Amino acid sequence: MTYDLWYWPGIPGRGEFVRLALEAGGIAYRDRAMEKGDEDAGAKALMADMGGDRNDPPLAPPYLVADGITIAQTANILLFLGETHGLAPSDHAGRLWVNQLQLTIADLVAEAHDVHHPIDVAAYYEDQKDEAKRRARAFRKDRIPKFLGYFERAIDRHGPWLAGARWSYADLSLFQLVEGLRFAFPRRIGHVAGDYPKVFMLADKVAALPELAGYLPSDRRQAFGNGIFRHYPELDAAT
Amino acid sequence: MTYDLWYWPGIPGRGEFVRLALEAGGIAYRDRAMEKGDEDAGAKALMADMGGDRNDPPLAPPYLVADGITIAQTANILLFLGETHGLAPSDHAGRLWVNQLQLTIADLVAEAHDVHHPIDVAAYYEDQKDEAKRRARAFRKDRIPKFLGYFERAIDRHGPWLAGARWSYADLSLFQLVEGLRFAFPRRIGHVAGDYPKVFMLADKVAALPELAGYLPSDRRQAFGNGIFRHYPELDAAT
Repeated sequence: MTYDLWYWPGIPGRGEFVRLALEAGGIAYRDRAMEKGDEDAGAKALMADMGGDRNDPPLAPPYLVADGITIAQTANILLFLGETHGLAPSDHAGRLWVNQLQLTIADLVAEAHDVHHPIDVAAYYEDQKDEAKRRARAFRKDRIPKFLGYFERAIDRHGPWLAGARWSYADLSLFQLVEGLRFAFPRRIGHVAGDYPKVFMLADKVAALPELAGYLPSDRRQAFGNGIFRHYPELDAAT
Repeated sequence: MTYDLWYWPGIPGRGEFVRLALEAGGIAYRDRAMEKGDEDAGAKALMADMGGDRNDPPLAPPYLVADGITIAQTANILLFLGETHGLAPSDHAGRLWVNQLQLTIADLVAEAHDVHHPIDVAAYYEDQKDEAKRRARAFRKDRIPKFLGYFERAIDRHGPWLAGARWSYADLSLFQLVEGLRFAFPRRIGHVAGDYPKVFMLADKVAALPELAGYLPSDRRQAFGNGIFRHYPELDAAT
């Protein structure tokens, strides 16, 4: 069967974590809002679908319609795809470990978003720019090292991938997180990359996966821009 | 077997979501940092354990040591407990639905924390008080209704509990979220409670569960105070 993926068109956002798993897993899907070909039309179609009458409503995209059920929350969708399509270890401990890593990645993704929207997600960046500068400082100084150091230890323990001998959906997500951080905080990441060689090597290995060779250069892959990871030069610095 | 729960002593925090599931499920556990009887000693024991040599390190508490594996991330621990002890539906769709709800609860919990720490989690509230006032306004106005309205619809569809005829760990967590919001934002919650009758009735039903009758009045249950949910009168208002 073909899954339906619903996410805001025009940004990678949280939808990209799902898309990477679908693509790397060779799983048939329709990218419902994207296939409208026009961002406005795609966003309207998404809102119409999301407001529709269903038993398991999502609070927000991304969500996946699969086998008659609607699955929302990025880590939950990936848990489903991991189990159903072998994108995570099948043993109890390995499955929980990958879910734990995914949730930890999701925590940093949420924080990366809040760097540019520390006060009000519904207000403009320009209206919270000074606060964003202060939050960015703490994010660069404390949060990036804390999380990247953690993933470095995880790879060190389990390597070469986060959960051992085979890549899992958490590896794809770590790649996307690293890509996002590189885009939003190039000076900071340039400064610390050498401290986390295993993390950056893993990201490079994901970028070189044969399973993603067709996808990554395609126009199905969304460029960073105005989404979760944003490059505001005033929020970036080496330290 | 008896599980080991590790969490910061003296605050309910994210540990309480796990504790409620353990208690309501009648599951044997040791509350390792709490049993030191002294907060400083408990925190030291936690940090020593967390820094220990293990294959599946947690980034942060809470974590559960069970069957020789360490499980971190609140929603992941609850997924494990739900599956192992029947605290969630066992069918595929129901299990994913409860995990999705738990992750959505976790999102609002994280936002409730960031209300009083919008800039820097490692800095004092007093040093980000003005920003906190602005973030609190958006949280009260937009975020509380968005999430409570969502849970109201979920109960409306599935009722009487979030996933149907039996309570699951997500119901326990929704109760704790409601309790936390009532503590931190009593004026706001007093003003909107009537809009979400099913949510508040569900919370009352959890409070009255025979499975929790021994726990809730006990000193194993931590009082709100200086943790995720904090009552700063200047951050609360009816609207």
